[in-house]
Amino acid sequence: MTIAPWRLLLTRALDKNSNLPYSRYFQLATVAANGYPANRTVVFRGFLDDTNQLKFITDSRSQKVEQIQHQSWGEACWYFPDTREQFRLAGKLMLVGADAPNQTWQNARKTTWQNLSDSARLQFTWPHPGEVKDKDDSAFFLSPPAPEKPLPNFCLVLLEPARVEHLNLRDNPQSRWLYQLDEGENWSTQAINP
Amino acid sequence: MTIAPWRLLLTRALDKNSNLPYSRYFQLATVAANGYPANRTVVFRGFLDDTNQLKFITDSRSQKVEQIQHQSWGEACWYFPDTREQFRLAGKLMLVGADAPNQTWQNARKTTWQNLSDSARLQFTWPHPGEVKDKDDSAFFLSPPAPEKPLPNFCLVLLEPARVEHLNLRDNPQSRWLYQLDEGENWSTQAINP
Repeated sequence: MTIAPWRLLLTRALDKNSNLPYSRYFQLATVAANGYPANRTVVFRGFLDDTNQLKFITDSRSQKVEQIQHQSWGEACWYFPDTREQFRLAGKLMLVGADAPNQTWQNARKTTWQNLSDSARLQFTWPHPGEVKDKDDSAFFLSPPAPEKPLPNFCLVLLEPARVEHLNLRDNPQSRWLYQLDEGENWSTQAINP
Repeated sequence: MTIAPWRLLLTRALDKNSNLPYSRYFQLATVAANGYPANRTVVFRGFLDDTNQLKFITDSRSQKVEQIQHQSWGEACWYFPDTREQFRLAGKLMLVGADAPNQTWQNARKTTWQNLSDSARLQFTWPHPGEVKDKDDSAFFLSPPAPEKPLPNFCLVLLEPARVEHLNLRDNPQSRWLYQLDEGENWSTQAINP
């Protein structure tokens, strides 16, 4: 697996914006079964080993999991405020839940769980996300789950980009580059009009 | 038209985050003709008069216009870093181009154009967005167009939310509220699990 050309630019943007904790957040667009788009913020959890796949996490009970099962193509939009850069990363989303057979993925799921904070792990004990909330808050104040083994509803998600657009608003004129994966698994690079 | 309950919360978030210029940026998800989602950053240009419709602008030659003509439902995801709030606003997108017959909308299109900076207006003279870029940059350095009358490819877009989710990460537990427009044009309010 060769490191994609956009990955170096993304890594540099992360580094240059690292003073802003929320520069690790991006917005993920998926499509629901009714054909409507959905969009929410997720937290970047690094790349999977030496691949170009972006890791983030979700609760297997959340709507995005159902959406991804229906339409696995997603697009991430990632804006970096300090360097005024935008990355749009489109590609296949892969769900790594408790029953995922791939051992590499299962190991990544476990490691990602272990690297979470207690308060992040605690969220996977909360009641079903998106359902009507009970007036009694006590279900939100259990003890954090053990770091050793992920809870069954803990889901790692991988985004494998096949098309990446990089926009730099600081350049004059703004620069915009398109990176595309061809059938031979090679990345093409093309300057396009902003 | 009654002011929607979420609009007050959004206005407050804008106010509290106003020290960050990029707190006026949000990510807009649309769906392309092939059923894949698309996602990009746009700049909030205020509400249309006393409606609950959010204004932003685009070039009529951009891909999002074609996508909206195909599927008019969109979802905006708007994260406010300082107050750690997220708004997800789903609803119909309405394109207000040079040929839009609605006079209120046409006036809003004109006013929005007039309120832009010269450098923002200049972008509408640039070559076709997304196409292969010419090595010669000179087409990007024309004189800014006159503020009086919008260029034909200047397009105002209105998002009329019908479903809004508000997540506040600062609360303990996180609070998450769902606002939905019913058939009688009234907004329901429901606390849901984060």
